Amino acid sequence: MAAKTSTNGTHYSRSRPEYIPNRIPDPHYVRILDTTLRDGEQAPGASMVSSQKLRIARQLAKLGVDVIEGGFPSASQEDFNAVKMIAQEVGNNCDADGYVPVIAALCRCNEKDIATAWEALKYAKRPRLMPFIAVSPIHMEYKLNKTKEEVLQIAKDMIKFARSLGCSDIQFCSEDAARSDREFLYQILEEVIKAGATTLGIGDTVGITMPFEIRQLIADIKANVPGAENVIISMHCHNDLGHATANAIEAAQAGAMQLEVTINGIGERAGNASLEEVVMALKCRGDQVLGGLYTGINTRHLLKTSKMVEEFSGMYLQPHKAVVGDNAFLHESGVHQAGLLKHRATYEIMSPEDIGHEKSSGVNMVLGKLSGRQALKSRLKELGYELRDEEVESVFRNFKAIAEKKKRVTDVDLKALVSNQVSHDEPIWKLDGLQVTCGTMGSSTATIKLVTSDGITHVACSVGVGPVDSAYKAINLIVKETVKVLEYSLSTVTEGTDAIATTRVVIRRENKQSPTPALNGNVIYPTFSGTGEGVDVVTSSVEAYLTALNKMLDLKE
Amino acid sequence: MAAKTSTNGTHYSRSRPEYIPNRIPDPHYVRILDTTLRDGEQAPGASMVSSQKLRIARQLAKLGVDVIEGGFPSASQEDFNAVKMIAQEVGNNCDADGYVPVIAALCRCNEKDIATAWEALKYAKRPRLMPFIAVSPIHMEYKLNKTKEEVLQIAKDMIKFARSLGCSDIQFCSEDAARSDREFLYQILEEVIKAGATTLGIGDTVGITMPFEIRQLIADIKANVPGAENVIISMHCHNDLGHATANAIEAAQAGAMQLEVTINGIGERAGNASLEEVVMALKCRGDQVLGGLYTGINTRHLLKTSKMVEEFSGMYLQPHKAVVGDNAFLHESGVHQAGLLKHRATYEIMSPEDIGHEKSSGVNMVLGKLSGRQALKSRLKELGYELRDEEVESVFRNFKAIAEKKKRVTDVDLKALVSNQVSHDEPIWKLDGLQVTCGTMGSSTATIKLVTSDGITHVACSVGVGPVDSAYKAINLIVKETVKVLEYSLSTVTEGTDAIATTRVVIRRENKQSPTPALNGNVIYPTFSGTGEGVDVVTSSVEAYLTALNKMLDLKE
Repeated sequence: MAAKTSTNGTHYSRSRPEYIPNRIPDPHYVRILDTTLRDGEQAPGASMVSSQKLRIARQLAKLGVDVIEGGFPSASQEDFNAVKMIAQEVGNNCDADGYVPVIAALCRCNEKDIATAWEALKYAKRPRLMPFIAVSPIHMEYKLNKTKEEVLQIAKDMIKFARSLGCSDIQFCSEDAARSDREFLYQILEEVIKAGATTLGIGDTVGITMPFEIRQLIADIKANVPGAENVIISMHCHNDLGHATANAIEAAQAGAMQLEVTINGIGERAGNASLEEVVMALKCRGDQVLGGLYTGINTRHLLKTSKMVEEFSGMYLQPHKAVVGDNAFLHESGVHQAGLLKHRATYEIMSPEDIGHEKSSGVNMVLGKLSGRQALKSRLKELGYELRDEEVESVFRNFKAIAEKKKRVTDVDLKALVSNQVSHDEPIWKLDGLQVTCGTMGSSTATIKLVTSDGITHVACSVGVGPVDSAYKAINLIVKETVKVLEYSLSTVTEGTDAIATTRVVIRRENKQSPTPALNGNVIYPTFSGTGEGVDVVTSSVEAYLTALNKMLDLKE
Repeated sequence: MAAKTSTNGTHYSRSRPEYIPNRIPDPHYVRILDTTLRDGEQAPGASMVSSQKLRIARQLAKLGVDVIEGGFPSASQEDFNAVKMIAQEVGNNCDADGYVPVIAALCRCNEKDIATAWEALKYAKRPRLMPFIAVSPIHMEYKLNKTKEEVLQIAKDMIKFARSLGCSDIQFCSEDAARSDREFLYQILEEVIKAGATTLGIGDTVGITMPFEIRQLIADIKANVPGAENVIISMHCHNDLGHATANAIEAAQAGAMQLEVTINGIGERAGNASLEEVVMALKCRGDQVLGGLYTGINTRHLLKTSKMVEEFSGMYLQPHKAVVGDNAFLHESGVHQAGLLKHRATYEIMSPEDIGHEKSSGVNMVLGKLSGRQALKSRLKELGYELRDEEVESVFRNFKAIAEKKKRVTDVDLKALVSNQVSHDEPIWKLDGLQVTCGTMGSSTATIKLVTSDGITHVACSVGVGPVDSAYKAINLIVKETVKVLEYSLSTVTEGTDAIATTRVVIRRENKQSPTPALNGNVIYPTFSGTGEGVDVVTSSVEAYLTALNKMLDLKE
């Protein structure tokens, strides 16, 4: 249990115990099951394509997640493909410590669902089937239209069926367990253990439970379910009343040795317990007050994982999202800043570096219009930008323009300002001129002048349904690529008509063979993003597109 | 304690007890102190102007908040003015039940701060001073550079000073109490009670505490502080580890009869316990498992209050924000939809109407590209839009265009689609034509053609720093108003270059006397918002501006 650094760069507070499906060698070790790709993706508007899911799964493995719930293979062919790709690739990449995540998939309690899930999962080194059925009176009566006895029989039969396929790691998921009749819950859990389940998933499916109730529920299961001592109890919390994170921690304290969470807390309705909150609570308080509980998560990958899920799912975080929100480490009030300058621990219980922020020598204070060049330069340096004096001068002018309008200029604003001003790679295509006409009096028309790195100028024009569409089409005529815009978003940094708009586009090549064929023969088209900013939303949109396009073409060259 | 409806339309589960600063007539009644205007506003980027604060305070009174913490008057002249305006107006509007909120203000423990706060507060019918001082070893040593004895003396003296001003309702706020030395905390609390404090604010200033610790802390204070039985204990929770809401509820269970919360949970860093989560947890579980705890909050105003704070603070919520997020009542997965159709309680623990959503006859299901005209029409009807057939047809075409690109079309998308398509008031100025030229090859130029309600056409052109700026300037030339754009934001509903962009602007008249002079003689300029959408970001920006402008001019006529 000594502190240890694994070969893939993870920093565990303690070593990760050896993997055995139904055994916990160290009762303090809390397994993390991440269900971002299943429950997270069920959030309205959060659907992701297979290639994005695969990239998230790779990132979850870097993070050190114990179990990756990859999807619900019966839901669609795309879900099936995603789980299969994850099982094939991420489910087989061992690090030198022998760590390879369990790849899991959800299935209803019927043979077809289970067989389909197994078909997708079986390529993984450690596959886990997760058959689920509702166990509360209201769900059994109204949704399933089945008696307790029928539900019990189905559960037993389907666990046996899952085992018969050759799966030795089976998590039985009891949906709406928090509202179940307690005696029935004990009975069904006892029966599924006998039938071969190795993990018992306990669902607070509607997010109604208070922490002390969760604690009692887990304690009661341990006390009343024969065989519970030989399996892992796993808690699945929803956030409808804002209690998901606290409930997960309480469950672990009561003996649930696996917690089901999502990155950024995304999921159905108000989402799930968020991985980063659960993990940081255990990291900050595990030894002090939580009886020594710990996880195998490398917290330094949290921020990057959060940003990736935010981008791919489109579920943008509020600035005050705990741990990974833009404001989570920002201090604004004079009282707080004064305290922090004297001792960081006055207002900081974890350091920004713990979750993957770049090294910050000082305090995450907010710059304002009274800040000078030195303060800006020093902050930019802390953010990792070592600029030449003339570059600082240029950023400073834009910074002052923003600070005049906005009481506080955040790190995010600064990064937006600096990112396109400082480029070290010579772009393949550079914007030399843009003229757009639009409005309600005729078609939108754009004229684009691009210059290549060897100095040759190309001009094209195009009409389109709006100024941005016409400009992008004109660019496509010059670069001769068929590009799909997957995402296009605009946000303004400052108030005022002359606000600085930040445009972000995500693109994908459409017509050519991708250089990254997937294991199963399908072609994965990589996506590329670019941002642009300025007072002219059309120009900034064009700059964002060119940045993304140059990245795409760079990979090809 | 019978169910009761007050004359201002609030629906309490029980009646609100009579107000006495330091007395709790019903030990089940949990007072809500809202600190959106103080701790909430301290969130980086969330600063609000006085007129916005006054509007929020009015809304908090409608919501039935017991104590409105209006600001920190020593922080700036603007903060002072805001508190004074709130004290004068909101702090004097009694309803027929005699309900008027306590107006409170924060101040450091020095005579100048306290006197300034009192100067702003004294106009209220029920003013409360909130002097604070840090009580943890790390804060006293590093931030205050004072000994325990010095802090104790200051606290006693300043409570006495506050009383000497004529204030009978004094909340002593112990900053960082959660990390204090317990014996010292008991001692300072005992002394401030003796000196005249009527409420004891207990701060988990850095958000480090777990629920069972909070429970113990409150129980310990009650057991060890002589006189604690004669005052109200108030809990202030921060959300750094995602535990703020759960901690607040635990504190109430342990006997903290006041909870300090903010709308949407905004505040320093990861914010505070969120009012809507705390209130709905007490409403949903108060009688069942929380020993009968209840609040005086009229939950049907929650959504409106949340939206107002979101708009004024610019702290936009993530879709999965509990209770008030856009997704909080949305159901997407087939399994959940099937359950809901049979019985809403399968997946809903509170109804959308409880928090102020418009009456929804069915289930908040997400429409997709397979949905037909009838499903769309029925959903629009549920959202309150009774459209004529030709209007539905027009919305349907745009709906299909979005649904092709986006797996799920949410209510928010639908509202964006329908809102500008259906207008019942004849606008004063209508867009008749727009032609904009922009880019990097010259100045942005806009030509605008507007037509008045009586059919007269006006044309103007202007240059500007970008297409939107030039168009807005051209409009200003026609309407002859000086308008300040307070906020300008763009977001895209769908992916693709031909995405539907939604533009939102908030404006304020700059040059003329406002029709709403404030009580203290200052002029409050009202703000007006407008939205526009379409594939052309420039045109949608102009439409948003015209909508806001027409609202502004409407008020003048």
